[in-house]
Amino acid sequence: MPQNDDDTLRTYSYLGPRGTFTEAALAQVPEAQGQHWRSVNNVGEAISDVATGVSFGAVVAVENSTDGGVTAVQDALATTPGLRIQGEYLVPVDFSVVARRGVTLADVRMLNAHPVAYGQCRTWIDANLPNHSHIPVTSNVAAAANLLESDVADAAVAPPNITDHYDLEVLAEHIGDNSNAVTRFALVTMSRSIPEPTGADKTSFVADLPSDQPGALLDMLEQLSTRGVNMSMIQSRPIGDALGRYRFVIDIDGHIRDERVADALMGIRRFSPKVTFLGSYPRADKAQIQFDARYNDDVYIEARDWLRGLLSGEPGLEQ
Amino acid sequence: MPQNDDDTLRTYSYLGPRGTFTEAALAQVPEAQGQHWRSVNNVGEAISDVATGVSFGAVVAVENSTDGGVTAVQDALATTPGLRIQGEYLVPVDFSVVARRGVTLADVRMLNAHPVAYGQCRTWIDANLPNHSHIPVTSNVAAAANLLESDVADAAVAPPNITDHYDLEVLAEHIGDNSNAVTRFALVTMSRSIPEPTGADKTSFVADLPSDQPGALLDMLEQLSTRGVNMSMIQSRPIGDALGRYRFVIDIDGHIRDERVADALMGIRRFSPKVTFLGSYPRADKAQIQFDARYNDDVYIEARDWLRGLLSGEPGLEQ
Amino acid sequence: MPQNDDDTLRTYSYLGPRGTFTEAALAQVPEAQGQHWRSVNNVGEAISDVATGVSFGAVVAVENSTDGGVTAVQDALATTPGLRIQGEYLVPVDFSVVARRGVTLADVRMLNAHPVAYGQCRTWIDANLPNHSHIPVTSNVAAAANLLESDVADAAVAPPNITDHYDLEVLAEHIGDNSNAVTRFALVTMSRSIPEPTGADKTSFVADLPSDQPGALLDMLEQLSTRGVNMSMIQSRPIGDALGRYRFVIDIDGHIRDERVADALMGIRRFSPKVTFLGSYPRADKAQIQFDARYNDDVYIEARDWLRGLLSGEPGLEQ
Amino acid sequence: MPQNDDDTLRTYSYLGPRGTFTEAALAQVPEAQGQHWRSVNNVGEAISDVATGVSFGAVVAVENSTDGGVTAVQDALATTPGLRIQGEYLVPVDFSVVARRGVTLADVRMLNAHPVAYGQCRTWIDANLPNHSHIPVTSNVAAAANLLESDVADAAVAPPNITDHYDLEVLAEHIGDNSNAVTRFALVTMSRSIPEPTGADKTSFVADLPSDQPGALLDMLEQLSTRGVNMSMIQSRPIGDALGRYRFVIDIDGHIRDERVADALMGIRRFSPKVTFLGSYPRADKAQIQFDARYNDDVYIEARDWLRGLLSGEPGLEQ
Repeated sequence: MPQNDDDTLRTYSYLGPRGTFTEAALAQVPEAQGQHWRSVNNVGEAISDVATGVSFGAVVAVENSTDGGVTAVQDALATTPGLRIQGEYLVPVDFSVVARRGVTLADVRMLNAHPVAYGQCRTWIDANLPNHSHIPVTSNVAAAANLLESDVADAAVAPPNITDHYDLEVLAEHIGDNSNAVTRFALVTMSRSIPEPTGADKTSFVADLPSDQPGALLDMLEQLSTRGVNMSMIQSRPIGDALGRYRFVIDIDGHIRDERVADALMGIRRFSPKVTFLGSYPRADKAQIQFDARYNDDVYIEARDWLRGLLSGEPGLEQ
Repeated sequence: MPQNDDDTLRTYSYLGPRGTFTEAALAQVPEAQGQHWRSVNNVGEAISDVATGVSFGAVVAVENSTDGGVTAVQDALATTPGLRIQGEYLVPVDFSVVARRGVTLADVRMLNAHPVAYGQCRTWIDANLPNHSHIPVTSNVAAAANLLESDVADAAVAPPNITDHYDLEVLAEHIGDNSNAVTRFALVTMSRSIPEPTGADKTSFVADLPSDQPGALLDMLEQLSTRGVNMSMIQSRPIGDALGRYRFVIDIDGHIRDERVADALMGIRRFSPKVTFLGSYPRADKAQIQFDARYNDDVYIEARDWLRGLLSGEPGLEQ
Repeated sequence: MPQNDDDTLRTYSYLGPRGTFTEAALAQVPEAQGQHWRSVNNVGEAISDVATGVSFGAVVAVENSTDGGVTAVQDALATTPGLRIQGEYLVPVDFSVVARRGVTLADVRMLNAHPVAYGQCRTWIDANLPNHSHIPVTSNVAAAANLLESDVADAAVAPPNITDHYDLEVLAEHIGDNSNAVTRFALVTMSRSIPEPTGADKTSFVADLPSDQPGALLDMLEQLSTRGVNMSMIQSRPIGDALGRYRFVIDIDGHIRDERVADALMGIRRFSPKVTFLGSYPRADKAQIQFDARYNDDVYIEARDWLRGLLSGEPGLEQ
Repeated sequence: MPQNDDDTLRTYSYLGPRGTFTEAALAQVPEAQGQHWRSVNNVGEAISDVATGVSFGAVVAVENSTDGGVTAVQDALATTPGLRIQGEYLVPVDFSVVARRGVTLADVRMLNAHPVAYGQCRTWIDANLPNHSHIPVTSNVAAAANLLESDVADAAVAPPNITDHYDLEVLAEHIGDNSNAVTRFALVTMSRSIPEPTGADKTSFVADLPSDQPGALLDMLEQLSTRGVNMSMIQSRPIGDALGRYRFVIDIDGHIRDERVADALMGIRRFSPKVTFLGSYPRADKAQIQFDARYNDDVYIEARDWLRGLLSGEPGLEQ
């Protein structure tokens, strides 16, 4: 993982410091290997780097993150013109208890932990450290790093790879309450090129709801359902100008070059006062998209040919 | 109204004999004036004339007729390949009581009437002819014509223009229970040319429901509602191969050259195992179609351009 | 099949004469066996018999009949107060060719047939009687009976049991184009008692659409779909006071004593300006109703108890 | 605003310290006046106080807050059994620039501001303090309080009432970008009593989506739309056990004692694997709820009586 400033390298921003879950996500991005990785302090800065050209790309958490910042990311994606998601990466939500060399579990009285991480490991902590006190810290990495700067805390809840970066010992592993939890990350750039369809794709967009229509969300979702398009994620966000006005960040199955997805996006575009296309890209889990055969590309093409035949008035085209 | 057999004239079939409501509809068809009018015995024959080239066009009742035959017409439209509706005409459902010269209302004991017409005039008849007996006859014209062939009946319920064709006297006019009732007629031909949009158009089609999907009708109607397309008529008809299988004859507001209508038709085409386009044509009532501005042609065009911009990857096209 | 006038017997009206498909349906009604069967000339008369107390019940075709009259029945059910369907019966649409004794197929030149029956046997007739002429007659029984009154026709298309009633010979059997076709009949009475649920039930009702709401049909059907209620039949009928106003005759799976059906009926009742409940009764095919477990009675009961708990304010009831 | 520990007083927790927007919301709660106000460090603590009985009630931000914590509140409401919202309060999002006595705008080089507040005042700040540096701080009150502890910063972005609590001067007022922005707060308690309907009520609940049904959100929203129930707020939250599983925090117009709302809640209860009723309470804006007359209480009552009449079999009840 080179970090030199060679101008021929592309820069990728990530929420640092080294050791965060976001860095673990960046390590999964093939095109970022051997390039310049830029550690920043928050996701707003990472996205700003991309928008202003400081970095070519950024990896940011978009769902279920314990590093925090997900709604900030969604708002940034919705409001920063030109951003596009180029890829998706999953990082397991996995925590260890780490301590300075020589400290044992039985010694732990004061425990550094980011509040979200603390909440996600509560079952293990209550069972194994019944007499501990919790010191909230601002990040998972800071929880660990702080142990080397001060001896107020005895141990820390930290990401599993933290010992690659800090001289600490692991006292316990896999202490999360939910062993299936993952955080979803996206690679965002300003490039307008869209990755080719793979059959296992996802498309993301942000759409404002019309403000004056009751049942507007229902109507908007019908734009998807009437094309057999499945929604894998929906997140409402206040637009911010008045209470009761929402935009939705939505992930759907499929690629903009799939007929049913293109048709659904046009439906959304007609319906919503403001739509921002965030990209079509391969799914991290590479799961092939399943959908009813009646939404196949050839069904769309046949219907378009049928209409064209009707409009041309030529016999024989229509049946 | 010439009826010679000059080969240069076009032939139009209609449910006769002269004096029927269907003939009154044909009299409203501008292009049929001065052409050859062919009286036939039932609507099946009229449609068959068009399909086989015996006639250029036919005028047939498509809704609410007292001449009967509406479901037969709908089934014929659904199953005869190539038929197209070119125009729509309304004829008020209006009845008179007619009798041989010299007969007065007070004389009427036996009353000829088609059963449907009889039902539609029941209020007037019960009030004004309390002691009559009803003789059911097979058509409205036959009710009147029969008075000149036999003196069993004293009077007949008949269309208002019947005295143009038979030497009878009118004893009472406008005796229908519902003064707003009209019958809707269509001009059908085999021509594939579609009348130009007027802003006051109607589009007709027949669509089979997929047989194995619960909620299929709901799904099909959503193809219309998600494009803001209003439905002015719907008629279910058994497909005929098994109980529980239906096709629907549907009229919608707008013209196939309207973007929202074209898009809805493609949606129906993709959804339904069998769709037959029956035509786009000016409404008889010339009422301009009202629809939400968000379904305007330019909204469709803008969405298509937006999608094209996204797919091309060129900057500046998308916003 | 007794037909005496003993006052202790109940009278059942049916579209006669003897030998019709309707009579075959009446023969399937257990409670009508050994009672008085009254042959009438049309379905309107049959229904009127029940409404006026002349008969206790009537058997009438409600779908896909070749005896005709289905829309008349649906209109009568919609407009005659107090009618209830008590049972459903299926009769195969099956035709024979019958002739006077001594006539063979090779002799047949003139063929009596009701136009609908003629249409339903067209494939066989075209293949086996290529040189015949068709004489339209007013009913399937009349087609046969007429052979004994006049020798104009050589043979007739008739129901299979016609030879029980007329001294005719069968020249060919099962000549219908579609061997699966059936006609559905209903037993209607003025009794307000509802047959007990069997798990294989059907519920029928008629509902007017609100006239001033676009998308009204869609909204009404959602009252069913949001309760997981499947629709097995839908028939639109003009209300008759103006073009564009419809009522719908609808059959749904399940019994009014099923929670999901009762809830759907209340939803329809609230939605529609006029709803007429036509009855819940066992299906002729005895097929058990399948529906998603989340619409089980106990789910409805649990939700009602939950709401009651919330409203009572008592702890412990709500979870 | 007494803050003694008299045991006869009720305790209300709020996100402190004194001077926060949350405190301004608490000041609007009539029943909290003259009671014990308990300042806590985060909303999780406020809610925990209520759940454990430390406090009778808590005021927490539920939408659009600049004090932060909204998603934490929504998650706490979704997962803490027994919590109920008793009232709603709006606080304008309004900021001032404050400084130590003697400092003028021209002196400001270093500016303390919570990052969210900083973002919401960016237009004013960029125009009026073009050469400033931003020091992020952890809360709006801390931004101001810190000025009295250290002279690193020259001024702070703070709530307008901050000068009631700190000896600071106001350099500028109403510097927010959006003068209409408000934060919505809720009073939560463990009381199971539901405030009486006022005609201007709101009902809140949390519902999990079934995980294995495509289109599930659409189906759930139809439970509202088919009862004419308008949704004023929807917020998706990950359930947390796996990606792609969501619960929704929803506010609807109306009161659980309104028939249409009760019916919709039962529909949601049947649909969703887990529903938590959060309360019915008067809207802060006192705006009377508008809804279509066909969802009136009496329409529901009539439909229920109609069904009861049908099931009883007694004549005369049903029409």
